[in-house]
Amino acid sequence: MSKKIYLVGAGPGDIELLTLKAVNILKQADVVLYDALVDPQTLDFCKEGVIKEYVGKRKDKHLKKQDEINELLVAYGKTNEVVVRLKGGTPFVFGRGYEEVRAIVDAGFEPVIISGVSATTSVPESFMIPSIDRKFNDSYRTITGHDIDVFKDIVTSYHPRENLVIMMGVHNLKNIVDALIEKGFPLDLPVAILSKGSTKEASKLVATLKEIQLKDESFFVEIKNLTPAMIFVGASVNSQNNS
Amino acid sequence: MSKKIYLVGAGPGDIELLTLKAVNILKQADVVLYDALVDPQTLDFCKEGVIKEYVGKRKDKHLKKQDEINELLVAYGKTNEVVVRLKGGTPFVFGRGYEEVRAIVDAGFEPVIISGVSATTSVPESFMIPSIDRKFNDSYRTITGHDIDVFKDIVTSYHPRENLVIMMGVHNLKNIVDALIEKGFPLDLPVAILSKGSTKEASKLVATLKEIQLKDESFFVEIKNLTPAMIFVGASVNSQNNS
Repeated sequence: MSKKIYLVGAGPGDIELLTLKAVNILKQADVVLYDALVDPQTLDFCKEGVIKEYVGKRKDKHLKKQDEINELLVAYGKTNEVVVRLKGGTPFVFGRGYEEVRAIVDAGFEPVIISGVSATTSVPESFMIPSIDRKFNDSYRTITGHDIDVFKDIVTSYHPRENLVIMMGVHNLKNIVDALIEKGFPLDLPVAILSKGSTKEASKLVATLKEIQLKDESFFVEIKNLTPAMIFVGASVNSQNNS
Repeated sequence: MSKKIYLVGAGPGDIELLTLKAVNILKQADVVLYDALVDPQTLDFCKEGVIKEYVGKRKDKHLKKQDEINELLVAYGKTNEVVVRLKGGTPFVFGRGYEEVRAIVDAGFEPVIISGVSATTSVPESFMIPSIDRKFNDSYRTITGHDIDVFKDIVTSYHPRENLVIMMGVHNLKNIVDALIEKGFPLDLPVAILSKGSTKEASKLVATLKEIQLKDESFFVEIKNLTPAMIFVGASVNSQNNS
């Protein structure tokens, strides 16, 4: 049996949304590598003497940094019993968890995944927005807004019974809204920008596609300060007004 | 302040994937209404004397039954302090949680959502299948396979960087596969049928679209026994073979 390395989901932010399994492995951990989306208080579950290393990515050297994290994981794995990579949300929903799995496997370790509460589903819930409200939806699409060309290439024309959950897209909000309108999404379709969901700094901004398109430059500059935030597009943003 | 009623996600099946918040409210609960996807052992967290009511839906009278659940929730809310509706996965991802919210609000109560680990993301993780593997994907679409006409109406032509996560679709597997091939999904695209993910009876079946299309009737009859199961379609089913 090869030695294990644990990829653990920390959930959307609220510490109480940690799973029992995550808490259990944190208690046993000798090393925890954690990133920007994890509340440092989460580490209070660890035993004394645990090595805690912050591996939040620096925006200007993103690619390099992921390699460094992979190398760190493997290096710690060689010299410690229980190594935990603690990630915001859940390991395989964005966040490059599978790249870490490849590095772990290539180095001869066994990766163990402990699922967390994904921000993609729980952040809308924290604002009482249903990913699926049977009255309006049969589907939702979770997509990165990081690269506008990729986004435009994947998103198809509007379907009234599908919501869009756009992650890492607030810096591209203007381009995303323009692209959706171009693809025939209704001008009066509601959009919710959900910031820091499940934490004390949570905020929600709701507007229609048209209203956002008409905003001036300063709005789009300011909106970038809401990171981490997701963009939720679709009828069920207004479920609360439709009983 | 109106009295609260709690909609709580129980996660995908593994009891250890309950959140701290879910355990905390279960400990306080006077009444728990739970359904077929919840492991009854979960109720061991409750105090003595708790009223536990199984509200699993009967297939033949689905619609009627949801109304009954709504009525029960409200009736218990009137006579008990802490009423918990414990649902598989997370409250607003399928499972008709928002219909329960409407009933709760209409009756003058305040709904409180406690997010759980969604099966949609954690079941693939439990089989080491990434919803997002940056090597292959930028998007995944979560859609009901319950009604084949709805499914066909929403799913668009194949995009190589998007996975499909099809819930409640195994009874329609043949129709779903035919529909995807008709929409131009590659014949050699891998499909994983993930049954009872995160539990001890978990099983995975992997085949290409073409292989499934060629199966005989008995295969499709048997596959229905795997419920609850999801159908995961896309390149990252094979991430493990592509390092």
